[in-house]
Amino acid sequence: MLQISKRGEAMPASPIRKLVPYAEAAKKKGRTVYHLNIGQPDIETPKQMRDAIHNADFKILEYTHSAGLESYRKKLAIYYKSVGIDVNHNEIIITTGGSEAILFGFMACLDPGDEVIIPEPFYANYNGFAIAAGINVVPITSHINNGFALPPIEEFEKKITAKTKAIVICNPNNPTGYNYSENEMQELKEIILKHNLYLFADEAYREFTYESKQYSAMHLTGVENNVVLMDTISKRYSACGARIGAFVTKNKQLIDATMKFAQMRLCSPYLEQLAGEAAIDLPPDYFDITKAEYKKRRDLIVKRLNAMEDVYCPNPGGAFYAMAKLPIDDSDAFCQWLLESFEYNNQTVMLAPATGFYGTKGLGLQEVRLAYVLNTDDINKAMDCLEQALKIYPNRKV
Amino acid sequence: MLQISKRGEAMPASPIRKLVPYAEAAKKKGRTVYHLNIGQPDIETPKQMRDAIHNADFKILEYTHSAGLESYRKKLAIYYKSVGIDVNHNEIIITTGGSEAILFGFMACLDPGDEVIIPEPFYANYNGFAIAAGINVVPITSHINNGFALPPIEEFEKKITAKTKAIVICNPNNPTGYNYSENEMQELKEIILKHNLYLFADEAYREFTYESKQYSAMHLTGVENNVVLMDTISKRYSACGARIGAFVTKNKQLIDATMKFAQMRLCSPYLEQLAGEAAIDLPPDYFDITKAEYKKRRDLIVKRLNAMEDVYCPNPGGAFYAMAKLPIDDSDAFCQWLLESFEYNNQTVMLAPATGFYGTKGLGLQEVRLAYVLNTDDINKAMDCLEQALKIYPNRKV
Repeated sequence: MLQISKRGEAMPASPIRKLVPYAEAAKKKGRTVYHLNIGQPDIETPKQMRDAIHNADFKILEYTHSAGLESYRKKLAIYYKSVGIDVNHNEIIITTGGSEAILFGFMACLDPGDEVIIPEPFYANYNGFAIAAGINVVPITSHINNGFALPPIEEFEKKITAKTKAIVICNPNNPTGYNYSENEMQELKEIILKHNLYLFADEAYREFTYESKQYSAMHLTGVENNVVLMDTISKRYSACGARIGAFVTKNKQLIDATMKFAQMRLCSPYLEQLAGEAAIDLPPDYFDITKAEYKKRRDLIVKRLNAMEDVYCPNPGGAFYAMAKLPIDDSDAFCQWLLESFEYNNQTVMLAPATGFYGTKGLGLQEVRLAYVLNTDDINKAMDCLEQALKIYPNRKV
Repeated sequence: MLQISKRGEAMPASPIRKLVPYAEAAKKKGRTVYHLNIGQPDIETPKQMRDAIHNADFKILEYTHSAGLESYRKKLAIYYKSVGIDVNHNEIIITTGGSEAILFGFMACLDPGDEVIIPEPFYANYNGFAIAAGINVVPITSHINNGFALPPIEEFEKKITAKTKAIVICNPNNPTGYNYSENEMQELKEIILKHNLYLFADEAYREFTYESKQYSAMHLTGVENNVVLMDTISKRYSACGARIGAFVTKNKQLIDATMKFAQMRLCSPYLEQLAGEAAIDLPPDYFDITKAEYKKRRDLIVKRLNAMEDVYCPNPGGAFYAMAKLPIDDSDAFCQWLLESFEYNNQTVMLAPATGFYGTKGLGLQEVRLAYVLNTDDINKAMDCLEQALKIYPNRKV
């Protein structure tokens, strides 16, 4: 018999996408499904970016430089300066989505069997990249009671072994929405310095913070060789389908090694690099408008959730996600039940069970992630559904 | 000290791109450099594909399905039927370039330490994908004397071990231009059946054959579960910067496993999928015109090369590459010398040393690859340069 590889078997199916068939079945029954399950923003991609594509003047869709268009990297350096990150274009490799930046980091810094520490709950696809790279994810649990703040640094100390090569921090966090403080980032700095680790910083949601500005890992001083920024335009400019990200580090040796992985796959898509370049010239108030919209939604969803009986939702400081604790037995079963067996005025809501975001088995059974990527009217309708559902869910558990 | 991973160190720099600094220096001196070193076609990307991009009607650049747009996959199935390949859209995963299709195949079918057999010389980036996947490439040498035909099947038998999981065949071949015959493909079928191996078929140049049609690995019967087609629109439609490819197999278990790798990186770029979809509707004579142009160039370059003293270039049946044996000591040194120390009427030529295409150290020292991606006038000028260069190269060796 022809075999699938062991890693092919171990690779997890997307926990966010596995409920899709149930959603499709609900829609076929004529039900409206409010999608709070996936981080696909409903905000328009800025017209300037769309214009860059529509007006692209080319006769041949040629390979670009493996590191990305030089003009784009130079503009990106300007953008980074505007958020207090001092890098030049040779310290940036354009990647095919933030996804590829993460995979490149795992590949270039870790060998099979090496370990990376990640506070859980975490972005589920880190598991996939880890399996592709043959490395192990060591989770450290953060908790809903304190809004998923950074776990005590002693917890990290306990998990560090000779195999530990890096810590991953997603800031602001997906799925928790937590915005790490400068103090927490400084604690991370101390531990990566002490143990000589890389700090992989996934900052896809940099601009989306509602109470205090994001403190970037690239703002830390004295750890320039340790920090790798894994970035993307997907969420920042509502351009998820562009597949344009960036691998950024001041570590020259690491840039050189990563360039070889970039050369392996030749280049990132050309047209979306043009769109990314156009984004740098957006007016200064672009993020203000987007942020105001997300903040309004966050305030609404958090208020609605906490008004429900036995529901707790800490106020997330960033990104466009909220994690809520619900009076349920099993978030996978509940989310499936919402799609399969529940309706309220012929409507229902799709949520992401939190179990898929935890590396530790058995955690997240009472938690769900809600992406507030719908307008406030739809969020209200979705919350009406959830409120009704929790009243009648047969396996209620406080 | 922070370390780069072992695989990051082992990853080879692109042998095609490593001479770039010398070419840049030559240009700075005011020299014209004819680029026969890289497979970037000079043919225009079809207007219909550019129109699909320019007229793309979207407000949000959204994620697509991880397997690619369903409409595109359905049209691709129609294209494949037109070349005698019977697949449906569920047997196709759109990938980010042919590169990603190769990486997915290595990852989903082989585990670290497993082996893949590849006739050499071969596309140099297979080395990079193998290192990324932690697998070993076992080369089997093909020879310029018989135009790089498939090595005798006994040579394959000798190299097969318990670790062997697949054979890779690039057809028509990059770098040799060899177009494998139906007989040779049938020989491969027997051996993959006998030893229960995957056959990875890289058919990027399918349409570009000049004497006889390509015989696809997907035309083989009785090995439907063994064959994986790794495809791309890069060369077919002169759209290298699109980064759109396809992973195609009738092996359901393998499609399911590969889908998990596809979900990990979310999706391929949206706009270029539209361009790929538009390509399916190109008029039936599209390839005739392109092929006629490439054939004219091939005929010219082969004639010019064989007219040079002590140069041998077998007539390549496909792709847009020719391999030539030159009276030189070391192809790397010679190609560098062409850029650094040689000029003829203030012009020179850039070639790809063949050493980078061999897995066996020490092979390819007298061979170079020429990509005939320039018009016939420029090819003539480039051949004039090469002819003069060989007359005065100080380390001539027959």
